[in-house]
Amino acid sequence: MIGQSGIAVRTIRRADAAQVAALGKFGVATIHEAMGRVGLFAPYLRPIYPGAKICGPAVTIFAHPGDNWMLHVAAELLLKGDVVVLGTSSTNNDGMFGDLLATSFRARGALGLVSDAGCRDTADLKAMDFPVWARAVHAKGTIKATVGSVNTPIICAGALVNPGDVIVADDDGVVVVPKDRAGEVAVAAAAREAKEAKNRERLGSGELGLDIYGMRDNLAKAGLVYFDDEASYLKGPSV
Amino acid sequence: MIGQSGIAVRTIRRADAAQVAALGKFGVATIHEAMGRVGLFAPYLRPIYPGAKICGPAVTIFAHPGDNWMLHVAAELLLKGDVVVLGTSSTNNDGMFGDLLATSFRARGALGLVSDAGCRDTADLKAMDFPVWARAVHAKGTIKATVGSVNTPIICAGALVNPGDVIVADDDGVVVVPKDRAGEVAVAAAAREAKEAKNRERLGSGELGLDIYGMRDNLAKAGLVYFDDEASYLKGPSV
Amino acid sequence: MIGQSGIAVRTIRRADAAQVAALGKFGVATIHEAMGRVGLFAPYLRPIYPGAKICGPAVTIFAHPGDNWMLHVAAELLLKGDVVVLGTSSTNNDGMFGDLLATSFRARGALGLVSDAGCRDTADLKAMDFPVWARAVHAKGTIKATVGSVNTPIICAGALVNPGDVIVADDDGVVVVPKDRAGEVAVAAAAREAKEAKNRERLGSGELGLDIYGMRDNLAKAGLVYFDDEASYLKGPSV
Amino acid sequence: MIGQSGIAVRTIRRADAAQVAALGKFGVATIHEAMGRVGLFAPYLRPIYPGAKICGPAVTIFAHPGDNWMLHVAAELLLKGDVVVLGTSSTNNDGMFGDLLATSFRARGALGLVSDAGCRDTADLKAMDFPVWARAVHAKGTIKATVGSVNTPIICAGALVNPGDVIVADDDGVVVVPKDRAGEVAVAAAAREAKEAKNRERLGSGELGLDIYGMRDNLAKAGLVYFDDEASYLKGPSV
Amino acid sequence: MIGQSGIAVRTIRRADAAQVAALGKFGVATIHEAMGRVGLFAPYLRPIYPGAKICGPAVTIFAHPGDNWMLHVAAELLLKGDVVVLGTSSTNNDGMFGDLLATSFRARGALGLVSDAGCRDTADLKAMDFPVWARAVHAKGTIKATVGSVNTPIICAGALVNPGDVIVADDDGVVVVPKDRAGEVAVAAAAREAKEAKNRERLGSGELGLDIYGMRDNLAKAGLVYFDDEASYLKGPSV
Amino acid sequence: MIGQSGIAVRTIRRADAAQVAALGKFGVATIHEAMGRVGLFAPYLRPIYPGAKICGPAVTIFAHPGDNWMLHVAAELLLKGDVVVLGTSSTNNDGMFGDLLATSFRARGALGLVSDAGCRDTADLKAMDFPVWARAVHAKGTIKATVGSVNTPIICAGALVNPGDVIVADDDGVVVVPKDRAGEVAVAAAAREAKEAKNRERLGSGELGLDIYGMRDNLAKAGLVYFDDEASYLKGPSV
Repeated sequence: MIGQSGIAVRTIRRADAAQVAALGKFGVATIHEAMGRVGLFAPYLRPIYPGAKICGPAVTIFAHPGDNWMLHVAAELLLKGDVVVLGTSSTNNDGMFGDLLATSFRARGALGLVSDAGCRDTADLKAMDFPVWARAVHAKGTIKATVGSVNTPIICAGALVNPGDVIVADDDGVVVVPKDRAGEVAVAAAAREAKEAKNRERLGSGELGLDIYGMRDNLAKAGLVYFDDEASYLKGPSV
Repeated sequence: MIGQSGIAVRTIRRADAAQVAALGKFGVATIHEAMGRVGLFAPYLRPIYPGAKICGPAVTIFAHPGDNWMLHVAAELLLKGDVVVLGTSSTNNDGMFGDLLATSFRARGALGLVSDAGCRDTADLKAMDFPVWARAVHAKGTIKATVGSVNTPIICAGALVNPGDVIVADDDGVVVVPKDRAGEVAVAAAAREAKEAKNRERLGSGELGLDIYGMRDNLAKAGLVYFDDEASYLKGPSV
Repeated sequence: MIGQSGIAVRTIRRADAAQVAALGKFGVATIHEAMGRVGLFAPYLRPIYPGAKICGPAVTIFAHPGDNWMLHVAAELLLKGDVVVLGTSSTNNDGMFGDLLATSFRARGALGLVSDAGCRDTADLKAMDFPVWARAVHAKGTIKATVGSVNTPIICAGALVNPGDVIVADDDGVVVVPKDRAGEVAVAAAAREAKEAKNRERLGSGELGLDIYGMRDNLAKAGLVYFDDEASYLKGPSV
Repeated sequence: MIGQSGIAVRTIRRADAAQVAALGKFGVATIHEAMGRVGLFAPYLRPIYPGAKICGPAVTIFAHPGDNWMLHVAAELLLKGDVVVLGTSSTNNDGMFGDLLATSFRARGALGLVSDAGCRDTADLKAMDFPVWARAVHAKGTIKATVGSVNTPIICAGALVNPGDVIVADDDGVVVVPKDRAGEVAVAAAAREAKEAKNRERLGSGELGLDIYGMRDNLAKAGLVYFDDEASYLKGPSV
Repeated sequence: MIGQSGIAVRTIRRADAAQVAALGKFGVATIHEAMGRVGLFAPYLRPIYPGAKICGPAVTIFAHPGDNWMLHVAAELLLKGDVVVLGTSSTNNDGMFGDLLATSFRARGALGLVSDAGCRDTADLKAMDFPVWARAVHAKGTIKATVGSVNTPIICAGALVNPGDVIVADDDGVVVVPKDRAGEVAVAAAAREAKEAKNRERLGSGELGLDIYGMRDNLAKAGLVYFDDEASYLKGPSV
Repeated sequence: MIGQSGIAVRTIRRADAAQVAALGKFGVATIHEAMGRVGLFAPYLRPIYPGAKICGPAVTIFAHPGDNWMLHVAAELLLKGDVVVLGTSSTNNDGMFGDLLATSFRARGALGLVSDAGCRDTADLKAMDFPVWARAVHAKGTIKATVGSVNTPIICAGALVNPGDVIVADDDGVVVVPKDRAGEVAVAAAAREAKEAKNRERLGSGELGLDIYGMRDNLAKAGLVYFDDEASYLKGPSV
């Protein structure tokens, strides 16, 4: 159950590695569109420095406000290439993650962290190039008193994440792809990029989206009226 | 009327090009001061990457939450050197603008976008050096179902913008100069900069604002009392 | 009294210079921990550009919304190496500080500003490398009409600051060290860093925090149960 | 110009009294719809107590953060039946309005206040039944140092208000009707209410909006597919 | 999948009616505790008027920003005693629900609405005693252009809701009980209330929680030290 | 030190009882003004129901996010007539206080609670008429794992509170009066009320604040210019 504490699952079924690799070629916006416009995390999660991009299966953490104990439990259970995702039982900005845990996570193979809590040692993390998407930068220390869970379903920044789902994060934010949809989404993303490449070329040459996408009739039907200038639209529509 | 939908105005009266060029030499703070401390957009609008600065006449868009149709209409109506400004009928963080529209806008001549909504493909936009000031970075896709307007008066981030007004945006935010005031504001901004240059030199040499601006008497009249140290102010004012 | 207006204190007792220098070797997170997890400013204060780090005794300002008069008073009273800290009588994002005051502050010796208000001319400040931690970037101009105080106790972003206390600010935020604790905190910070260096090495080699910190028994006592996989935890705990 | 200070206009052209009275029969939501879904103030403006409803021509105030001087200027210029509307030059929650000004406003004939700032003495105002829509309840005192304007165009909570426009405020928030549209909007509001009354009766009898508004075909065209139950939609659409 | 559009499920498995009735005797806080401290919606959802309390199976709606079409679809699919719960594809405060839909929902048997969007006609809803928990009161009109879903899993205010789960809402907020846990949670809630009744009596007589719950030793172990007065704790602990 | 954990002080010096009683006659706004416009808590603290008003010496609590252990410690240390004030080590909305603790606090004599955290069981608290000013209504349960302090100086909602200081709370919010200033503030508040009573009478008779307070000259000096109507101010000032 979402939000259940006291559980650590050793082995999870991760998304297919080849499909994860295929998804890793695309950005968050493309994958979100290719999935049918779902899976986005709320935009209050921001990268602690610009330019990072990661893609990997989720190891999930459920934690309580001000308590980062479960991150140590997760360190043992993650595999090379994983992305750690942390949800909390209530809103919390405390600095649950810093350079020591990043050192541990990196040594164990994690690519980065997506956390619905705070992060600290951000200059060190940037120097290490260990990316974090967090809701706050805050040095506030945390305790190790209450168990949460690792590798159970969580909600992070409004998104449902099952262990092993694929997490893609870049400057635009974070998106989750359910592990069983990873293959089809990678295919759809590639198709979308191919189509966009053509449109990008046409748009770059000055051609209009109005014409490329055939919008003019629909705009008129939806009620858009063109006027030659401000004066004329105070009188009536232009022909 | 503010917020009217269904109107696209082909030709707008833009601020005088020489005056726009003159304004473009100054930053947002200087222009805001030179106008008499008006015209600022709310500070929640932030550039998606640091270091950009643009100045140009406004092509305005009025859009509905989650619907970016009008941006395509605007692409046709903008001229080289314009700045596109988008207001919405209610608060919305969706990713109304991304690299395809930026490619189109650039091809048509736009300098950048100021949007009271979300923006996506931010890494691409930075690589293109196409600046956007937005209320959120969010990959959320948008629809094309409801018409808004292009080139009607709008409110964006609390500022009233008429089509053709001058928009200046830099790291400090965004300011609008009414098109008929562009000339006088450019003159006032130059005067202010000249005056500030002198004061900057004096301040840089260690001279105090208290003396340069003659504040000491007014401070005393307004009730400021100096004490030698903490102990003495618990007893009474120093002489 | 906190929030009293009309007082300017010329001479304050500053933290010991050697102790300030010792503290300057550590980051905000380390000092916060070394003090016993106190002294942090709220995380809504953010640096206007990344990468800055300062440490120095506080010259304090109490100001009213939209009024930056007291910053000029502070310019006279600060000494080389000071950090100016500004609290307000109510929430305000106006641009109380810009490049002219930064020029003055630098000429007088200030290292930077921590302000519970807005900041402007941020591109200039970055070019000058004069760091500011602020609650907003906003070009809004301010007046000089109401006196506040300089060098009295203030609350800034939820932290109590006495004049002469040590302020440390970096990418993680801001922390205040009471002047009489500066020495012991520097010692404790050094001890913490030494200990962390050892743990960093072990963690970097792949050793787990669970083992280094001996957490396994406490986790079990606190109720954490391991399961081999999702299927098994629907049945019961693994052995 | 929006945001200009130093102007007090004695006589304004108010909306027609009969049209104001006609508008006063309708709620905010109905008028917003009748106008074509425009004119709403941002929802952060809330009534200080539930159950109040007012409608009258706007006397406008432009004020600076923490300064309520202009409210006294407005007291002289308002007429019986007016609604005072206050915008600010930057975000401010200070208690610009309390029971003394309410006593004055009531004696001069004002129906209530809509303020993009804070309000205090709220228990007294409720006892007087003098309604206020404000962005905060805050006892913070204000000064009288900087002139703003009275009866110039303002922006309040994202809405443009010209002096004499009609303001309607109730538990749902606040809406402005341009004075020259008051008559037509009252007529449209009446028509909408008549139509809604019929639909309310049908809906109240259990008839569905799907049938009353003929939505079923459009929903199907837009892609809605019905399934008998969860099991079946994992297989495919129901017939 | 969470966030999938275009699906309407006619028949859902609802929680057992007797168990729903049993849960209806308890408040949100009690049920949250009885479930093991899970299931709460984020506290930004607030009742539009105080004093309401509802309990019933969830009919779920997934809607897009500014579009309330799916509420009409839900009206047909709900049964007497249901609670409608609405999640959105991105943050939106528009007034998706008002008195007409409330009239329809009531005629069809719904007890109330929990909505991660805005609500209007709040005075009418209060007069009807049709309770709504919403993220905003906002009159903003909505469109009917894009299909979402009805009776698929949704996330509302950070909580995962499956169709047929039990929703309890009162002045404290909203909680969801998975339908298969309704019986056990009702039993646990009753046990908790019985235990609390005893403790309430003891606490009401002046007995201390410190003694009732035996906290004194644990507090001491955790490091709490008592001092007789402020002076003494500057010297050391009292005995 | 602010924010120190592990301390419980049994006996505190409370403000003089007669002075507390004297202060209790005045509202928050009056006391704030009488003190020289200081001492207010941030306006995000709101009463959980309208109409309550309390005044008493502060028993202070310093607590950690999600942990309400110290409230039980405070229950023992409070005296009849006290107001409990709770600050936290970081932002937290969890429901630290509910009807059981309210029953205990009432039995021990507390008048109410001011808390920079969440509150639950609000319908019960209203029925008991036990008032709480809180930053959120949230049912989220809390733990008892980490000691904070009782009766040490705290910061709550941006205000510094020493144990024994006087807390006044009403519909306008919360204010703290340092215990050694209680007498003088009560006198100043009475003087202010007497003066306001006279002004209220004059304002109520229709006399203007402009005349009562002699503002007309100062307004003109500050730059306010009157115009007869909109047309004339586009030409120039009226005489």
